[in-house]
Amino acid sequence: MQHHVVIIGAVALGPKAAARYKRLNPDSRVTMIDRGKLISYGGCGIPYFVSGDVSDASELQTTAFHMLRDEEFFRATKDVDVRTETEALSIDRAAKTVAVRHLPTGREEVLAYDKLVLAMGSTPCSLSVPGAGLRGIHAVHGLEGAQRIRQLVSGGGVARAVVVGAGFIGLELAVALADLWDIETTVVEFRDQILPGVIGGNLARMAQKQMQDKGVVFRLGEQVRSFEGNAEGRVARVVTDNAAPGSDLDADLVIVAIGVKPNSGLASAAGLGVSQRGAILVDEHLRTSDPDIYAGGDCVELKHLITGGPAYLPLGSLANRQGRVIGTNLAGGESVFAGAVGSWCVKLFDLSAAGTGLTLAAAKAAGFDALCVHISQLDRAHFYPDKGLMSLELVAERGTGRVLGMQGLAAMGDALVGRVDVVAALLPTGLTVETVSGLEMAYSPPFAAALDILNVLGNTTENILAGRNQGIQVDEFAALWAGRNGNGPYILDCRERANVAGLLAAHPEHWHNIPQGELRQRLDELPRDQGIVLVCNTGARSYESYVTLAHAGFTNLVSVEGGMTAILAAGVAV
Amino acid sequence: MQHHVVIIGAVALGPKAAARYKRLNPDSRVTMIDRGKLISYGGCGIPYFVSGDVSDASELQTTAFHMLRDEEFFRATKDVDVRTETEALSIDRAAKTVAVRHLPTGREEVLAYDKLVLAMGSTPCSLSVPGAGLRGIHAVHGLEGAQRIRQLVSGGGVARAVVVGAGFIGLELAVALADLWDIETTVVEFRDQILPGVIGGNLARMAQKQMQDKGVVFRLGEQVRSFEGNAEGRVARVVTDNAAPGSDLDADLVIVAIGVKPNSGLASAAGLGVSQRGAILVDEHLRTSDPDIYAGGDCVELKHLITGGPAYLPLGSLANRQGRVIGTNLAGGESVFAGAVGSWCVKLFDLSAAGTGLTLAAAKAAGFDALCVHISQLDRAHFYPDKGLMSLELVAERGTGRVLGMQGLAAMGDALVGRVDVVAALLPTGLTVETVSGLEMAYSPPFAAALDILNVLGNTTENILAGRNQGIQVDEFAALWAGRNGNGPYILDCRERANVAGLLAAHPEHWHNIPQGELRQRLDELPRDQGIVLVCNTGARSYESYVTLAHAGFTNLVSVEGGMTAILAAGVAV
Repeated sequence: MQHHVVIIGAVALGPKAAARYKRLNPDSRVTMIDRGKLISYGGCGIPYFVSGDVSDASELQTTAFHMLRDEEFFRATKDVDVRTETEALSIDRAAKTVAVRHLPTGREEVLAYDKLVLAMGSTPCSLSVPGAGLRGIHAVHGLEGAQRIRQLVSGGGVARAVVVGAGFIGLELAVALADLWDIETTVVEFRDQILPGVIGGNLARMAQKQMQDKGVVFRLGEQVRSFEGNAEGRVARVVTDNAAPGSDLDADLVIVAIGVKPNSGLASAAGLGVSQRGAILVDEHLRTSDPDIYAGGDCVELKHLITGGPAYLPLGSLANRQGRVIGTNLAGGESVFAGAVGSWCVKLFDLSAAGTGLTLAAAKAAGFDALCVHISQLDRAHFYPDKGLMSLELVAERGTGRVLGMQGLAAMGDALVGRVDVVAALLPTGLTVETVSGLEMAYSPPFAAALDILNVLGNTTENILAGRNQGIQVDEFAALWAGRNGNGPYILDCRERANVAGLLAAHPEHWHNIPQGELRQRLDELPRDQGIVLVCNTGARSYESYVTLAHAGFTNLVSVEGGMTAILAAGVAV
Repeated sequence: MQHHVVIIGAVALGPKAAARYKRLNPDSRVTMIDRGKLISYGGCGIPYFVSGDVSDASELQTTAFHMLRDEEFFRATKDVDVRTETEALSIDRAAKTVAVRHLPTGREEVLAYDKLVLAMGSTPCSLSVPGAGLRGIHAVHGLEGAQRIRQLVSGGGVARAVVVGAGFIGLELAVALADLWDIETTVVEFRDQILPGVIGGNLARMAQKQMQDKGVVFRLGEQVRSFEGNAEGRVARVVTDNAAPGSDLDADLVIVAIGVKPNSGLASAAGLGVSQRGAILVDEHLRTSDPDIYAGGDCVELKHLITGGPAYLPLGSLANRQGRVIGTNLAGGESVFAGAVGSWCVKLFDLSAAGTGLTLAAAKAAGFDALCVHISQLDRAHFYPDKGLMSLELVAERGTGRVLGMQGLAAMGDALVGRVDVVAALLPTGLTVETVSGLEMAYSPPFAAALDILNVLGNTTENILAGRNQGIQVDEFAALWAGRNGNGPYILDCRERANVAGLLAAHPEHWHNIPQGELRQRLDELPRDQGIVLVCNTGARSYESYVTLAHAGFTNLVSVEGGMTAILAAGVAV
């Protein structure tokens, strides 16, 4: 059947849906329109273009075999008609037409469709504060916008930059500016941690510390009040709600990366179902409330596969997979996109962060009786020369042992992402902590430990859920430590003497040492009238000590999850 | 309850079971015996000790926090009594005793047990050929045996080595000898590929080519007939069934790594159930046919979670997890070890290989109507500077689309192992190709492509299963190419002209070129009376060309899976 499919948006989902549909239905006709001049580019590569890792913007727009994905490419290789710099004005669902305008000429036209695909993506949120219109203040918006930022920084005129927003894009750009262009970079974030919403506070502090060590300055818990310009109308200063004298930030460049909002105006104007937050509603076949109109990518709301509730996840990987589902369904298929668990990863200098599912805070907000267990240890056989530290946090439901999410940091990014992908793949199956304990992970010393770090995370969580261990995390330890006085805390370091000597000398009142192998013989040395905080290198020996002490009748015990490794990684001064 | 648990074997599973059990049941008494002097070491690290990557053998025997796991360590930290150089002679199940002998003194003793754990491991298979007893011929057997090999090679007296067996250990040792010690190394394998049984022939050839490029010589399909010695009784030559003159191999060192057999003599003598291949039979709680005797690790047979049949998988990672299950069950738990899918990984110079589940040959042998789909492409965003080639093969069942296994090779080993672990985790759930297509993989350009290579593998397999593409693999292409004559094959290269010029000039009779973007306009140039073999860089454009030609009525079409990338990686000369 020779259908005419019109696709609005030609960056990620649009081209994928078009190509898939045409392969299944070569006789059909596809017209794809886009407001922009540049189409079908890897938007997630923008930070690497700004940094210069990707030398030319066209590389984000080429195939792996170096062909530029422009209008002619789509016509020749995919038999898809593309119109760039063409805006969709309105949809007439009864007539099944879209009114469009060619922006350079102003010429308007009405395109009839049999099926319509909405792939309009999202728009960066802007700051409504005085001075927001000054030159030198940029959102990260499409490849053309990225080219303007790159021109500025490569021109050498930027000495100090402020990035507003410590989410993925804000941090990736902070790395690009600080690392590759050696620009003094400050990140302003109104919440009290970096990567808010996607990672827990302890991991966030560890990642923040590593970025600070590379020279990035963070101003957390601060909100931008205004931008001030110079005589030429260029931004010169960022003023936040920090009232302390001298707290204004000089800046030649400001990048605002405080999130995106779905482009759904066209859909709501046409009477299609749109969510409260403004994302287009679709069913699991990615059909809107009009069965002849599909939508996907950054402009739709998805089902969250852990909470069962709605989720807005503007991620390029989801857009691509949704494009294929829509392409299949346009051709009469019944392909399903059930939803997402929200997997992500980001590289921050030499550190990688990744996660999937819910954080502890998100799990609690969704009504789960959840806990979060932290481990920090080597990611592979400790005797193998190339290895790195990995920190993982498992979020699980008490009672059921259901896994709700996992987040982590690591020096070896691929190794971390691999573990996250394993958990992500199993999350929709109702993964339990017990299953994580028993996961079959490929092993040889260059890649893993005989008992994989994921298995260890499962074991540790099982022990805590069963009450065989009681953990506290770095932030709780830091609070105990900051509040130390004559009454405590009583810290029992379970490592060998040589590892503890410095701490014992510095803090004789609070820091104590019995190597774990001597503990059963030296129980008499410990106070029975006071809580004991057990600590070791990573938490393994403090867990064994916990078991020994609990068996000997000690009741007020906690063990520091991730041990000194986590304490030092988070920058807690002891 | 104060039970006495006796554990026979103290390398991997034994110590894990002992430690877990003692944590759950601190009042109990555990005695662990081992024939060897060294216990609780990372046996999988032996190749890295032989290579010198691990400088001292004791590193394989220490914890991550550098404590030597010797008898005193187990006594002090785990409250476990260990007796080394002590052999178990027999089990009296009625009396619930084990007779043991202290090897240095010959002193015999009878140990009473409440529960017994058999963790005797495996023994390397030996070659029963003339000269097998010559000095300089070694099996890889335990840390003490490894120390002897390391002494030989580090002494400088080894110029030429022969490794018999191209499985994991044989190849790891070949790498150790050739790479780190610069020894001329030849691998003899009686089957016709490396890594037989765990990887398909095409991937094996690709891996073999990369090892050959590093200087390792392979003699496949050859069987060792005898070893010849010099006047001092040291091995000097390896004679195989290759009758060609000059085919004998000079060797100062021979390592025999032709597999291992389970140590089950003690069990069968005690009347416990033992399989035909000699592995101890256990249920899913890892109990033997005697409910007071558990067994695990290299001496037991497991259930294969794909075939449902028995499997013998002597892997350190499985032993460790089984140890925990046994420890839990000794303490009255009902922990389950359901079986395994057989995940593995191995590093071969700069190349990594990994896999899980069944190969195509194993799937067919198990009665599945299976196919295998190959892809070769970049493992992450093509515009990101650090990236590598990855080849993956998915083995799936026709009709049901059930995934039976996956194997792969990659430059970036962690990235490959991550993908293998994802598939391994899902295999027991009845994973389908459709699910692989839709897997939610964490994405940002430093780690993956927007459409992950696993998703691409799923998509490609779906298309082939649905008949939308018909693939041939490198070996089939190589056979076609080797048999070329005036009648064909007709190869249509779908890449751009510039990529194809050399091939067109070299093979004008067989090699033809229409860039994919021009194909619809140039159908008249193609023969309708002859089969057409489509090829491009990785298989993406040849698939699109396949669709175009099939739609135009061409019927005799195949597309080369993995394209020129796979052809060149396998070393096929075109």
